[in-house]
Amino acid sequence: MPEGEFEFIARRLRPLASAPGALNLTDDAALLDPSQGQQLVLAKDAMVAGVHFLEGDPPGQIAQKLVRVNLSDLAAMGAAPLGYLLALARPMEIEDEWLAEFCAGFAADNAAFKIALLGGDTVSTPGPLTLSLTAIGEVPKGAALLRSGAKAGDDIWVSGTLGDAALGLKVLRRELHVTEHGRHYLIGRYRLPQPRLALGQALRGVASAAIDISDGLLADLGHILGASGVGAELRAGALPLSPAVRDLPGARNAALAGGDDYELLFTAPPERRAEIAALSRQLALPLTPIGEIGAGSNLSILDATGQAIEPPSKGWQHF
Amino acid sequence: MPEGEFEFIARRLRPLASAPGALNLTDDAALLDPSQGQQLVLAKDAMVAGVHFLEGDPPGQIAQKLVRVNLSDLAAMGAAPLGYLLALARPMEIEDEWLAEFCAGFAADNAAFKIALLGGDTVSTPGPLTLSLTAIGEVPKGAALLRSGAKAGDDIWVSGTLGDAALGLKVLRRELHVTEHGRHYLIGRYRLPQPRLALGQALRGVASAAIDISDGLLADLGHILGASGVGAELRAGALPLSPAVRDLPGARNAALAGGDDYELLFTAPPERRAEIAALSRQLALPLTPIGEIGAGSNLSILDATGQAIEPPSKGWQHF
Repeated sequence: MPEGEFEFIARRLRPLASAPGALNLTDDAALLDPSQGQQLVLAKDAMVAGVHFLEGDPPGQIAQKLVRVNLSDLAAMGAAPLGYLLALARPMEIEDEWLAEFCAGFAADNAAFKIALLGGDTVSTPGPLTLSLTAIGEVPKGAALLRSGAKAGDDIWVSGTLGDAALGLKVLRRELHVTEHGRHYLIGRYRLPQPRLALGQALRGVASAAIDISDGLLADLGHILGASGVGAELRAGALPLSPAVRDLPGARNAALAGGDDYELLFTAPPERRAEIAALSRQLALPLTPIGEIGAGSNLSILDATGQAIEPPSKGWQHF
Repeated sequence: MPEGEFEFIARRLRPLASAPGALNLTDDAALLDPSQGQQLVLAKDAMVAGVHFLEGDPPGQIAQKLVRVNLSDLAAMGAAPLGYLLALARPMEIEDEWLAEFCAGFAADNAAFKIALLGGDTVSTPGPLTLSLTAIGEVPKGAALLRSGAKAGDDIWVSGTLGDAALGLKVLRRELHVTEHGRHYLIGRYRLPQPRLALGQALRGVASAAIDISDGLLADLGHILGASGVGAELRAGALPLSPAVRDLPGARNAALAGGDDYELLFTAPPERRAEIAALSRQLALPLTPIGEIGAGSNLSILDATGQAIEPPSKGWQHF
């Protein structure tokens, strides 16, 4: 006999709700005391089984991915995370043990990111497991990184490496075969993104615009260009590729258009180059200049010889 | 050809996002400036087609119900609403016209409650339409109504009338046949709850505990009793029933255990009676004393002669 809603909340969710404002999950809503001089930053991302994760993914990592894609949105705004609310639409066939592992994933990321569950809702569904998380963070007033600040002449930077997650998904779908070590790395990058929170916070006052790469580099760069009213030239040869990806078929397309990287894409004036290089060393995180913002509204992609190349199919749309 | 995600956001959702912190929905997250001396109040409720609303319900009213069940949570905490984030998991078969009507419901309630869409996420699902909304409100620091403050000797009060929504659902399911006028009233109460925001805010400093009735009177009173560590005597004959419900079969059980009323259930010391009666007149909203909080932890229900009666099946659990 499966746990009822109230038992599930008491046994599994209450231990995750260590923040005083969660009121032990006994109330209708959570309370939050914003710090003096801070703005709140609110992100809400949803995930559906079979669409945003695979049914067979480890339950704890599904929870962690849900947390991290939302924290990645906070990172892109330069915010520090505080906590989150969770809505869980549970199909009948999901068992208590699955939910216990799922909740252990939240516990792990609560500790890793110093956050806590604040509240939410659990409902039943005849459909697939459907999750939605609202992440709450804060940023000093006026310091949030936006998509709209890119200016002609700015460098375009990206953190980490691109295309790993998209190829990890291909490996999981048996559309791509790689070494055991490559397999482990690529699947890990798909299942467990690393929200670049420290980078986002360090970029306050440095970056002119920022976004996290969830839809794919081209699509997300397109969002910056659209919001900023500018164009760009991208150097395809400069895209940072991991050793696991570098020699795989489709590597460049995965880096250009694959989703789920959750790296930060940002722009900054050229006079910030030394500062950004120092930040890269300090965070032990590659930060790579991959192009420049230009006037107009065109996005061109140049190969190593400076010739324009055709973009692959655009980053995906969610529906 | 259905609208893509970005067209849908631009055409349907952006007009709902009039708050400056929504950043025109062009960023990864929303910004919110909490007012001085206020705490934020965060509620998140999910709804699934076929579980929490019927597939054939008018799309605009589904949106309004989603807004209102969340505002009802804010009302129960004594909070004033600011705005909301929306997660929408959309099945393929939902058409653009349906979504247009759905969004018109948000527009209507944005105007009615002076709130705005702040952000969120739209995804596709192979399952039923699944909605989750995070409502954000504020309350003066320390003034939030909680479930945990009920004390022995307090009166138990309820706003409005009970059981209407549960019987409205029975009418929709053709399990109950009523007059045309009754049908219209009961279905309206099921589909369009009235969050008791003005009442909740007026009860700050007056009520010792409060909750909104979503699971049913007995279940939600049980939440107050559990959180406060007290018991209660409920007078079944005192439950406020609407004229449409009063003579229907199952009226008392619907009032005791039916869900979806979204009235406020609150406790207050007896010396507050005159104040609460005045508040009822001022808001033109019935406020009815229906029992007393007692020591111990028992909940007994008394009939008109003071005899204890058996409770009907408990308020529902969501899974």
